[in-house]
Amino acid sequence: MGINPNINKILKGIKNEPVTPQKIADNIIKGDRNALSRAITKLESSKTDEQEFADEVIKLCLPYSGKSRRIGITGVPGVGKSTFIDYFGENLIDNGHKIAILAIDPSSSISGGSILGDKTRMESLSGRIEAFIRPSPTSGTLGGVAAKTRESIILCEAAGFDTIIIETVGVGQSEIAVSSMVDVFMMLLVAGTGDELQGIKRGIMEMVDILVFTKDDGDNINRTKLNKKQFEIALKMFPAKDSLWIPEVLSVSGFEKKGIDDVLISLNNFFEHIKSNDYLAQNRQNQSIQWLNDQILSILKNRFYKNENISNLLKITEQEVVNQQISPIAAAKKLVEKYFCNEQ
Amino acid sequence: MGINPNINKILKGIKNEPVTPQKIADNIIKGDRNALSRAITKLESSKTDEQEFADEVIKLCLPYSGKSRRIGITGVPGVGKSTFIDYFGENLIDNGHKIAILAIDPSSSISGGSILGDKTRMESLSGRIEAFIRPSPTSGTLGGVAAKTRESIILCEAAGFDTIIIETVGVGQSEIAVSSMVDVFMMLLVAGTGDELQGIKRGIMEMVDILVFTKDDGDNINRTKLNKKQFEIALKMFPAKDSLWIPEVLSVSGFEKKGIDDVLISLNNFFEHIKSNDYLAQNRQNQSIQWLNDQILSILKNRFYKNENISNLLKITEQEVVNQQISPIAAAKKLVEKYFCNEQ
Repeated sequence: MGINPNINKILKGIKNEPVTPQKIADNIIKGDRNALSRAITKLESSKTDEQEFADEVIKLCLPYSGKSRRIGITGVPGVGKSTFIDYFGENLIDNGHKIAILAIDPSSSISGGSILGDKTRMESLSGRIEAFIRPSPTSGTLGGVAAKTRESIILCEAAGFDTIIIETVGVGQSEIAVSSMVDVFMMLLVAGTGDELQGIKRGIMEMVDILVFTKDDGDNINRTKLNKKQFEIALKMFPAKDSLWIPEVLSVSGFEKKGIDDVLISLNNFFEHIKSNDYLAQNRQNQSIQWLNDQILSILKNRFYKNENISNLLKITEQEVVNQQISPIAAAKKLVEKYFCNEQ
Repeated sequence: MGINPNINKILKGIKNEPVTPQKIADNIIKGDRNALSRAITKLESSKTDEQEFADEVIKLCLPYSGKSRRIGITGVPGVGKSTFIDYFGENLIDNGHKIAILAIDPSSSISGGSILGDKTRMESLSGRIEAFIRPSPTSGTLGGVAAKTRESIILCEAAGFDTIIIETVGVGQSEIAVSSMVDVFMMLLVAGTGDELQGIKRGIMEMVDILVFTKDDGDNINRTKLNKKQFEIALKMFPAKDSLWIPEVLSVSGFEKKGIDDVLISLNNFFEHIKSNDYLAQNRQNQSIQWLNDQILSILKNRFYKNENISNLLKITEQEVVNQQISPIAAAKKLVEKYFCNEQ
């Protein structure tokens, strides 16, 4: 059994085929998952040429984006996020949806390593063609997460996914960034003594549209019932949301496969609501403009803090400020003046 | 009765006496309220030379600052803020304190005009030498409010005020800025159906250290009792604060002059707590460094958005972004590149 003498030629041919942003974009729009993965990898690359390539792909995909439901889901480790999303996603697919899951992975000290690296944690979904699962490392800056995830949403939408789930661990500030790119924000909790709330960053609770208690089974049923009541009261204490939606409190059991219908109904009601009062469109517009301005600020900031003269000076200045030798205002003025003398 | 022939000469003499930052600072440190007022006016001026004068004064006052209790108090219009602060302040003075009240006045559409212009709204306090009341217009940018108020705190502390109250109306984002410059955050509420919460910006409730129901008298007594319970439950739902302080819910009646003792005790307990766990010092240091970096960002931002070429381009670009003609990321890059070509 001889090797096909043309094999090297063929492989080489495949390898050398020039991959253009146009080609990748075309394939994404056709629903090619490999093209999608590849574009996201380029997007997340720290190399300038890869990023420029990705920018071009995004530009071409933009007109095909925007038609999905963008859903943020957060919950601390141990709440059963994977099980929930697996169960939730399967039901969405059974209802004819195609879902992309972008998991923001803090890959940091907080969670003690990657919590999302393993695709197999979503057993049902990882085997299905209608689901696309992609963990994204946060790799440093928050602006980074937000920017990359926002652009990944665009690519996934262009690839035909009509439901985008952005998954976060609910312990950091990423939720605030995520809330600025989704239409609806869901939080998962497991019934308990309240201690589990200690891990949740303040401010997150106020962003919640749909609160879901997981593991509503066995010993947990009574606790869940009680907790649901308490949270219904607590959520009423919050001022009205811009969407005028009143947050709902639900419960599911991934183990007993119960409760997901209520979640799907609540989600449908939510989207009905924000479509009918035009909040969906308004919010998306605001998010885009916000995104532009966030990016501007993030670039200005990066340029400033990455300036070598500045980073040296800043340390000294911070100490002077703490020691009350100079007012923060005067110090800031001085630093920025120095910066603009150096730039160019 | 003839006019003193020297009167013009005398007046002219007074007028022409050169006022230096050193002189103003010396007078502030001696406790001269006029010098204090004058410095704050210069601080709030939009003229560059006045600001530079104020910067110099602040620099000289800095070593004398930092020794006060910095208290943020917020509450929507109608909650009885003036009555409360009047009652609260009087009791503080009776306990030997000197208090400065910096009222952040949104002077905007929200409140329908100046809510704080009239000093006489605090009847008892406005007559007392131990109290200094100063409304500050927000005049546009939020960074502006924060910057000016932060520097005003320094001046008031240098003038010997040991309790600084920063008053806001609890409807805007200023509370978040305020929380970054105070040690303790108090919110005033009046018992009711919950509708009054609609006006409070989301996120504020989570910052509260001491919640005080006002108007706990007459028909309101039962409602207040019930509301206090509800809020005690609700506040427990929030995750722990960085200070590890558990928020307290109290009630007062300014009309019946009852309840203020509890507020003073709670405040003392709070400061005992944050001193003993070193949160006070840590928080102040963090606030200073935060302040420096906020200021840097605010200057960078102002320079960018005030650039004429940019402001014209930005409008067009925002529209392109909303129309999905360009990705916000690409648009931001383009704008910043243009900006640095123009600068200098």
